[in-house]
Amino acid sequence: MEKYFLSDPELNDPVPMDFLSHKEKYEETVRKACVVYKKLKEMRKGTGSIDISRENIITSVIHSILKDGDPFSLNNVMMIPVIIGQATPRQQAMWLQRTINYEIIGTYAQTELGHGTFIRGLETTAHYDPTTQEFILNSPTLTSYKWWPGGLGQTTNYAIVVAQLYTQGVYRGIHLFMVQLRNEETHEPLPGIKIGEIGTKLGMNNVNNGFLGFENVHIPREHMLMKYSKVLEDGSYIKSTNEKLAYGGMTFVRVSILKVVSTLLAKACTIAIRYSAVRRQSEMKPGEPEPQILDYRTQQYKLFPYLAASFALKFTGKWLLNICTEVFSELEEGKLERLPELHALSCCLKAVCTTEAAQGAETCRLACGGHGYMMCSNLPSLYGLITAACTYEGENTVLLLQTARYLMKAWQQAVGGMAMTPTVAYLKQAVSGSNGTPCWEGSTACIVSAFQQVAARKVKHSADIMGQRIQEGVSPEDAWNMTSVELVQCAEAHGRAILVERFVAAVAELNVSVALKTVLAQLRDLYTIYTLLRNSGDFLMYTEMTPLDYCNLQNRMETLLSELRPNAVGIVDGFDFHDDIIASTLGSWDGQVYDRLFAAASKSPLNQDTVNESFHKYLKPMLKSGL
Amino acid sequence: MEKYFLSDPELNDPVPMDFLSHKEKYEETVRKACVVYKKLKEMRKGTGSIDISRENIITSVIHSILKDGDPFSLNNVMMIPVIIGQATPRQQAMWLQRTINYEIIGTYAQTELGHGTFIRGLETTAHYDPTTQEFILNSPTLTSYKWWPGGLGQTTNYAIVVAQLYTQGVYRGIHLFMVQLRNEETHEPLPGIKIGEIGTKLGMNNVNNGFLGFENVHIPREHMLMKYSKVLEDGSYIKSTNEKLAYGGMTFVRVSILKVVSTLLAKACTIAIRYSAVRRQSEMKPGEPEPQILDYRTQQYKLFPYLAASFALKFTGKWLLNICTEVFSELEEGKLERLPELHALSCCLKAVCTTEAAQGAETCRLACGGHGYMMCSNLPSLYGLITAACTYEGENTVLLLQTARYLMKAWQQAVGGMAMTPTVAYLKQAVSGSNGTPCWEGSTACIVSAFQQVAARKVKHSADIMGQRIQEGVSPEDAWNMTSVELVQCAEAHGRAILVERFVAAVAELNVSVALKTVLAQLRDLYTIYTLLRNSGDFLMYTEMTPLDYCNLQNRMETLLSELRPNAVGIVDGFDFHDDIIASTLGSWDGQVYDRLFAAASKSPLNQDTVNESFHKYLKPMLKSGL
Repeated sequence: MEKYFLSDPELNDPVPMDFLSHKEKYEETVRKACVVYKKLKEMRKGTGSIDISRENIITSVIHSILKDGDPFSLNNVMMIPVIIGQATPRQQAMWLQRTINYEIIGTYAQTELGHGTFIRGLETTAHYDPTTQEFILNSPTLTSYKWWPGGLGQTTNYAIVVAQLYTQGVYRGIHLFMVQLRNEETHEPLPGIKIGEIGTKLGMNNVNNGFLGFENVHIPREHMLMKYSKVLEDGSYIKSTNEKLAYGGMTFVRVSILKVVSTLLAKACTIAIRYSAVRRQSEMKPGEPEPQILDYRTQQYKLFPYLAASFALKFTGKWLLNICTEVFSELEEGKLERLPELHALSCCLKAVCTTEAAQGAETCRLACGGHGYMMCSNLPSLYGLITAACTYEGENTVLLLQTARYLMKAWQQAVGGMAMTPTVAYLKQAVSGSNGTPCWEGSTACIVSAFQQVAARKVKHSADIMGQRIQEGVSPEDAWNMTSVELVQCAEAHGRAILVERFVAAVAELNVSVALKTVLAQLRDLYTIYTLLRNSGDFLMYTEMTPLDYCNLQNRMETLLSELRPNAVGIVDGFDFHDDIIASTLGSWDGQVYDRLFAAASKSPLNQDTVNESFHKYLKPMLKSGL
Repeated sequence: MEKYFLSDPELNDPVPMDFLSHKEKYEETVRKACVVYKKLKEMRKGTGSIDISRENIITSVIHSILKDGDPFSLNNVMMIPVIIGQATPRQQAMWLQRTINYEIIGTYAQTELGHGTFIRGLETTAHYDPTTQEFILNSPTLTSYKWWPGGLGQTTNYAIVVAQLYTQGVYRGIHLFMVQLRNEETHEPLPGIKIGEIGTKLGMNNVNNGFLGFENVHIPREHMLMKYSKVLEDGSYIKSTNEKLAYGGMTFVRVSILKVVSTLLAKACTIAIRYSAVRRQSEMKPGEPEPQILDYRTQQYKLFPYLAASFALKFTGKWLLNICTEVFSELEEGKLERLPELHALSCCLKAVCTTEAAQGAETCRLACGGHGYMMCSNLPSLYGLITAACTYEGENTVLLLQTARYLMKAWQQAVGGMAMTPTVAYLKQAVSGSNGTPCWEGSTACIVSAFQQVAARKVKHSADIMGQRIQEGVSPEDAWNMTSVELVQCAEAHGRAILVERFVAAVAELNVSVALKTVLAQLRDLYTIYTLLRNSGDFLMYTEMTPLDYCNLQNRMETLLSELRPNAVGIVDGFDFHDDIIASTLGSWDGQVYDRLFAAASKSPLNQDTVNESFHKYLKPMLKSGL
């Protein structure tokens, strides 16, 4: 599939995109995106329909090609899934095929200038008028303008809009509406639609994020997505039997983020490890040639743990996606039992994994020294893509506090001796007594158990101090806020316990050669021990680990770094990223780092003339102006 | 001085720079830089000479105005100081006034494409030819091209070039040469000079970093900087009596970085704290209005410790600059005793402070959610400026290992009962016995002492395991490399101990009102306790701090967050950053966040047309192409 797309010469950049202006980048991106999506249309010819999991693969290839963002992507990632999940069959007949065929192109407009994670705070309104059988959309304030949706600026002509519904004078909560934004023939914004793009960003500059305001925009009654809640012709409102069914989409996106960031982190590791095998620096021993910087223990310590982390994220992401698929199919049968656990898992793992991947990518960039600072290394863009995920689809701290709320409830269940859902069952150990700590013998099983022990004890600690504050007369809400630093930390500890446990389980389950399993076990041990050492205070406080055990683990970690050294380049080669996908002067397969750096600089438009005209216009007059 | 520069209407951006192409940014930067430097020339009129400390203030104002880098800056920051420090009086007469007057404009070309921190590895050569009394400069390989010098691309016409000197067929080590790069009238590169810019970067895109290669470039003998070492007409080489004298410049730049990053961090804190007082989100209590996000304990926990850190860096930077000035004036008298300590301090504090400031700026950005991702928040640029300092002027890990080498020597001195230099005198405590740990009572003095205890024990631990490895037959160089992860950690612990001790001393020494001192003491306590808690494993391992002490400190930290909350906006207002200097939609003095975001987006060139031409050229044909 990569070859199918990448073989097209129209996708080459005569001048690297980084040198273009913001407007030129947009125009060049639309040109390339149209090339890509025409090819996608070709692929879909004959099938007529759409297979979501195959679409995910295609989407990921397209995202790799349109590196710094794709203004069409929300059509695939949000518009189509939301129509499938939230629209009635009649509505699907109206829109689904048109979006799949790219006859229209849509986005998803939820976040507003003044309102992000807290959806109930959104200000956009939809008032139903039974006389015309229309909804009237309005943006009553500046802060109610939609802000951020991808492709919204100049690209899309439709959007799913999230708004506060009022019918028969009664407030009905948040609902979704299909809104046409632009004329399909002329692309002019429709009356009452105020639209534009929001400007330049740290990364993802080709996404064409936009803003959107409504001034008395009328849309037909049939344009509210009515699979669950409904508004009848007279304005009667029929409430969904279960509101939670509407949130499946966001959970799915959060779960998908794990795979996305694990791949981006693997790319960053590939670049840094390949570069570190080419770059030579300093003298390790007097008179000897400069060694590859990958031979420095400090460089191994920077890179290999994050290489291991990319596997931890990948395995955990795969496991979580399986759970998600199971829970969603149970939902179709009306079973809702596992939804809270899935929600708690998706919140906490999205937060922990994006934070870890962002740190990893940035560590990889810094490990490449000054050259990692250059855009042509692709490391700044990879960081830009990952760090964006720390704040989108639920800001990480807010998500961790949602998981913490689940953990506090689970703790009460554990204390009450009730049945526990699988991923928090370990809390029971901490309840069963202070001597629940396993004897420390440093095995993988011991370490997994210690991570759970830490999480459980932190949950207990948070519950205790919150309870104490409430007992002292503090309101539960204030006690929650006062304890929130600890609550975030216990959700993080829970996330780490799951990542470690899933990595161990995944390696145990894999049916691969002994040689491969050995390397995977080294990566697993490195990840678990490194993560433990980075949080050593927790383990010294809450487990039986002693300072001596700590030193032994430090030694084991260093041995693992040595053991992984000879295979490091092989492991990243094994990711099999195409050079055009990795898109890095430092990280290409052939290791021709310096030639590529020079070639990239040669393409700078500034280097096409020996003297820039600013010399004659500004510089020479200043130099000659005398003091 | 700010007003003098900022009042000039020619410094306004009709279109924000972020929207321009790389080439347009350069041209616009040169235009603005010429406006600024013409004003600088005006200021210098009458004085005729140059006062370095006043120049530093001017430079910092100019850097604030030319936000994303200044292509002229290396003339002030490196060229002038190097001429003063390394050139003979005769040479100074040739070049100094011309550079001060901006009749010529210079840069400093040391780093090469393949060689950074390890100066001895540089490949550029300068061979002396006694027949013509010239040096002949060459770049024998691609990796020997100079790469990175600021302004080198299209701006400067002179450079101080670092090259390997050969005379009389003998290698003489690294020396500095004044090289004319471009014709002063036409700006065309001189024969044999290959020059250009290196391309786009994560940040500092207006610095015009360049590359430079030499092909048999002849320069007069008088163009080698000869204050210390000399080459006579016949090629005889006179070695400097002390090579270390040549390194003063780099130490000074490293020391200056502390002030630079503390100011940048203070800017980031100002933006995030002001925004957090405007932004409202979620419901703390049912039915109540959305609170300012600064009321969330988690938000305070993100921002206030870095606000405190900006003071820690500022105080420590000032102290270090004083030491640096003292040591340099001792050098003039031939006293070299304090040079190694200064070198160790400047290496370790540059590394620890840039890392801390970078984490802080990025934490501030993430604390502003999605809006922090926008360039108009100015937070991405501030991070770009700070994180660059982690790899320039000595890569941080390399610098920490240099300090570690000093600490290992100091440890041997402590063990041997020798006299210790002041900043490592605390190591003696750790030698004097295992019961050197002070009883834990949680006072500020106890915490300072605990930081030193941790550093000392880590130094001892590293020395012990390295010694053990050597005893087992490992070569000293391999033992060093095998121990380098611990060695880096002990240099970091040393740096933290100094920062904490300096913050405490600075607050004690300040003669200010009780009210102000109270707030500074809160910031000091927050910084010390937060830093301790973030490294709790070290304190549990190496001091008498118990888990209960840890919980008490956590409580104290949370009390400090509450106490600082009412003053947080006041503290950042006290930094007194001009709105044009802070340059942030989120961080302006009036708090009009949403209007400013909207106004910034309105300036996007993409928003000047309702329909972008790419719709007709690419998008419509794709949408209409059918499946």
